[in-house]
Amino acid sequence: MKAVEYEGGQHLVMGNREPVTPGSSGVRIRVAYGGICGTDLHLVHGAMDHRVTLPHVMGHEMSGVIESVGQEVTRFHPGDHVTVMPLLPCDSCPTCHSGYRHICPNLRFMGIETPGAFQELWTVPESVVYPLPSDLPLRLGALVEPLAVACHDVRRSELQRGEYVVVLGGGPIGALIAMVVRSRGARVLVAEINPYRLSLLKSLGIDVIDPGQTDISESVLADTGGRGADVVFEVTSSTLGAKLMTDLARPRGRIVVVAIFPAPPPVDLHRVFWRELQIRGTRVYEPEDFREAIQIAASSAQPLEKLISEEFPLEQLGEAISHLKGGGGVMKVLIQCDPLAGN
Amino acid sequence: MKAVEYEGGQHLVMGNREPVTPGSSGVRIRVAYGGICGTDLHLVHGAMDHRVTLPHVMGHEMSGVIESVGQEVTRFHPGDHVTVMPLLPCDSCPTCHSGYRHICPNLRFMGIETPGAFQELWTVPESVVYPLPSDLPLRLGALVEPLAVACHDVRRSELQRGEYVVVLGGGPIGALIAMVVRSRGARVLVAEINPYRLSLLKSLGIDVIDPGQTDISESVLADTGGRGADVVFEVTSSTLGAKLMTDLARPRGRIVVVAIFPAPPPVDLHRVFWRELQIRGTRVYEPEDFREAIQIAASSAQPLEKLISEEFPLEQLGEAISHLKGGGGVMKVLIQCDPLAGN
Repeated sequence: MKAVEYEGGQHLVMGNREPVTPGSSGVRIRVAYGGICGTDLHLVHGAMDHRVTLPHVMGHEMSGVIESVGQEVTRFHPGDHVTVMPLLPCDSCPTCHSGYRHICPNLRFMGIETPGAFQELWTVPESVVYPLPSDLPLRLGALVEPLAVACHDVRRSELQRGEYVVVLGGGPIGALIAMVVRSRGARVLVAEINPYRLSLLKSLGIDVIDPGQTDISESVLADTGGRGADVVFEVTSSTLGAKLMTDLARPRGRIVVVAIFPAPPPVDLHRVFWRELQIRGTRVYEPEDFREAIQIAASSAQPLEKLISEEFPLEQLGEAISHLKGGGGVMKVLIQCDPLAGN
Repeated sequence: MKAVEYEGGQHLVMGNREPVTPGSSGVRIRVAYGGICGTDLHLVHGAMDHRVTLPHVMGHEMSGVIESVGQEVTRFHPGDHVTVMPLLPCDSCPTCHSGYRHICPNLRFMGIETPGAFQELWTVPESVVYPLPSDLPLRLGALVEPLAVACHDVRRSELQRGEYVVVLGGGPIGALIAMVVRSRGARVLVAEINPYRLSLLKSLGIDVIDPGQTDISESVLADTGGRGADVVFEVTSSTLGAKLMTDLARPRGRIVVVAIFPAPPPVDLHRVFWRELQIRGTRVYEPEDFREAIQIAASSAQPLEKLISEEFPLEQLGEAISHLKGGGGVMKVLIQCDPLAGN
C-alpha cells in the first residue's frame, strides 16, 4: 500500500509498505482524509527528528472507514466511519493517575512517536478510535481533531454564555476556537493580519480586526464598555501576542495559551498581579472534547466546510506542504489518502 | 500631634498636624504600631510621587485603639483594639459590581492616595476598620495586614491539605505565606538566598533551600516522587524566580504571582502549554482574608512574633527605613507610633 515517508533532511518520498495486521484489540482503517497540521510542517522541517524513527509516516488529523478489526474488538465493525484521538499515554505515572492522561509526561503522540495517517491503511488500537456519524462527510471528519483542540481550549477557559472573547490569531485553530465560542453563546473578535484569513473569517460572520491597522485595545474597550475581554486566547506564538494577551484582559480575566512558543517571551507579570489575571496553558484534548467536536461537526451549525482551502492526493503531500508554507491565501489543507474510502 | 511627613526628594520630616475630626461615620484611632512595607520603601524612594499629595503621611500596616467615633458609628467604641483594611474602592465600576472591589481600577490605597498610619492619631471611615481581640498584643495586630496578603495569596492558589508548595522568596510575605500554608495542613519549602532569613525560617521549623547552593529542581522532584510542586508562589520579582516558577510546577500545577515585577520577565509559555500550568495574579486581600488573618494571629499557632526584627519610635522612621534598605539581618520592622496606645 502507499505511504508517504519522511526520510529526514526535509525529504518526503512515496513508499510502499505492507499493511500492519491488527492485533486482537486493534483496528485497521482505510484512511479517507488527512489534515496537515503546523506540527507536520515542523516535522518535515526537521524540528522533531529527535522524536521520530526514520523512515517515518506522519499525520494525526484524519477520517476513515474501518477495514478490519481484531478478534476482541466489539465496538467497531468494517464499514464504520471513524476518526482517531492520537494520544498514547503511559497510564502508570502520577499525571495519568490524576486523570490528566492527555498531558502525561511519557505521552506518545501518534504520527510523531508512532506511525501516522498519511498512508492508505492505518492500524491503531481500538481505544483511540471514535465513531463518526455515517452521514457526516468524511472530509469534515478530518477536521474533528483540530476542532477537539478548540473544544479543549474553550473548556479550559471556563467560558460563560454572553462573555466577550478575543482570539489572537485567525489560522485554522483560531478560527475553530471562534466557532466553538460562538456555539457556546459568547461574543468573539478574532485578531489576524493575513488579509486572506481576515476576509475568509469575515465571510463566515465572525468579527475580525487587523491589529496592524486598528488599535485593538481601544476596540476591545469600546466593545465592552471599558471593561476589557473576559477571555483571551493566544494562538500566535508571537511577542506581540504575549503582550496583547495581558493588555486586553479585564480584571480577573482568563488568558488561554494555545500557541507553541519557541522561546520564552516577555510577559507583563505586573499586570497579571495588578488585575489578578489568570494564564492557563492548554494542550491537545480529552475524550469529552473529541465527543463535543464530533457533535459540533455533525450539527452543521458551524461552517467547517469553508475552512478547507484545498485538497491534494496522497502523492502530492510534499507539494501541499510547500503550498501551506508559502502562507498567503490558505487555511486548512486536506490530503485524500485512499479514494476507495469515499468522501 | 506627631506625624511623619514625606516631602518628596526622598525626605522624611517629623511634622506637627492637627488631628482630623471624624465625620459621622468615621473613627479616630490612636495608632499603636505601624509596620514598614516594601511599598513604603518605594514611596520614600520617589517611585510613587505621581500617586501621593505632598506632604504625605504614609503607612498602611497598623494596629491601634479607638480614641473617638462619629455619631453614626455603632460597631466600635473608644478603647476597642482595631486594625484597618486600607482599601477604598470606587464601588461604581464593573469590577466593583462583579464583587472584586479589592482590584477596582479606581482603587485608592490608604497610605498612598490618602494619608496613612505613621502618625499618632489616624482618622478613617468605619467601613475599613476590623476589630482585634483585646488579648492579642498590639505588636502582632500590626502584622494582620501582611498576613491577610498571605491569606489571600494562599486562597487564590486553591491549596488542598497535603499538597506540596514552594515559596520563592523568604522575606516577610514569603514567610507569612509559608505559615498560612502550614496552617492549612500542606507541606512547604521556602527558597531564599539571604543567610539571615534562611536561618530565621529554619528556626521556625520551616523547610528552606538556598537555590544558589542546592539544585532546587532536583530537590523538589526528590521531595515529590518525581512529580513536581502542586503550587509555587513567586515572591522574588526576579528573572530567576520567573523561570523557576514554571520549572518547579507539576503538570496542571498552579503558580501564584505575588511579587511586583518592575518589568516583564521572560516566561516559559511553552512549558505553560506543555504542562497545562496555571499562572494566577494575586493582589492585596478581601474581607474574608482579613478575618482569617486575625484568626491566625489570635490562635498563636504560628510564631508571628519571631518575624519582628526590631522596633523603632515614630521619630526614627527614617532610620528604620535606612536599616531595612541595608538588607542583611532584618525581617519585619515595626514603628511604635504612639506609646499611649499600649502594646
